[in-house]
Amino acid sequence: MTKDEFITKGNELLKYSKLIYVGSVDETGFPNIKCMFNLSNENINKIILSTNTSSKRVKQYIKNNKACIYLCDDAKFQAINLTGFIEICSDYASRKALWREGFEMYYPQGINDPDYSVLKFTAKAGNIYSNLSNETFDL
Amino acid sequence: MTKDEFITKGNELLKYSKLIYVGSVDETGFPNIKCMFNLSNENINKIILSTNTSSKRVKQYIKNNKACIYLCDDAKFQAINLTGFIEICSDYASRKALWREGFEMYYPQGINDPDYSVLKFTAKAGNIYSNLSNETFDL
Repeated sequence: MTKDEFITKGNELLKYSKLIYVGSVDETGFPNIKCMFNLSNENINKIILSTNTSSKRVKQYIKNNKACIYLCDDAKFQAINLTGFIEICSDYASRKALWREGFEMYYPQGINDPDYSVLKFTAKAGNIYSNLSNETFDL
Repeated sequence: MTKDEFITKGNELLKYSKLIYVGSVDETGFPNIKCMFNLSNENINKIILSTNTSSKRVKQYIKNNKACIYLCDDAKFQAINLTGFIEICSDYASRKALWREGFEMYYPQGINDPDYSVLKFTAKAGNIYSNLSNETFDL
């Protein structure tokens, strides 16, 4: 597989994943996983996700911005693990871009709710598991 | 929720999870996620999983045995993240306990295939996300 084929495959998998798995490293060095909704993402190199500013996850990424995002197609036994960095965006433009109807359930004050933030993930490498083999690419 | 209720909930979630998400920290400090088959596990405190001895995951756990296991019930918006330690077991008893028909696809030489290993996870803490709130317990 070439790097371009990997990116195409990753973007395809991302586009059709309603849920994605996001990894962080906590203050005591343990990995943590959280399942998050995937909205508006079509490019594995830059993935944006909404979250609570007060969440454990945000506190973890402020201290350690190393992250991973895992995309999985169970039916095809294909999976991609992306490693990269998370940036916490609290600017209005990022928050508006991700806002969806129904988010009031999580953020009662709407787009300006101080507890609403956006995580921006930038991939630096990716690993694909497919047909019982693994390949890794720098991005 | 009490600690006992957490354990009961976790064991229930584990029992019905065909797939679980396993986290590690790689040599450069990035979290990594892998989806694995859940076989024979009924107790969140000790979870066993089969894997290839030659896999990246095994190399990572030899260097850094801090791990997490994530269990998720998408329909109920409930999820548990367990943090703990992974031990790599290559003894015959552990390998036999986890062996299943069809594993020859992954390990052509059978139970004694040197590429077949068992990971034993011992939880030290757990976090539950349910009804929009988080609770953490020492295990």
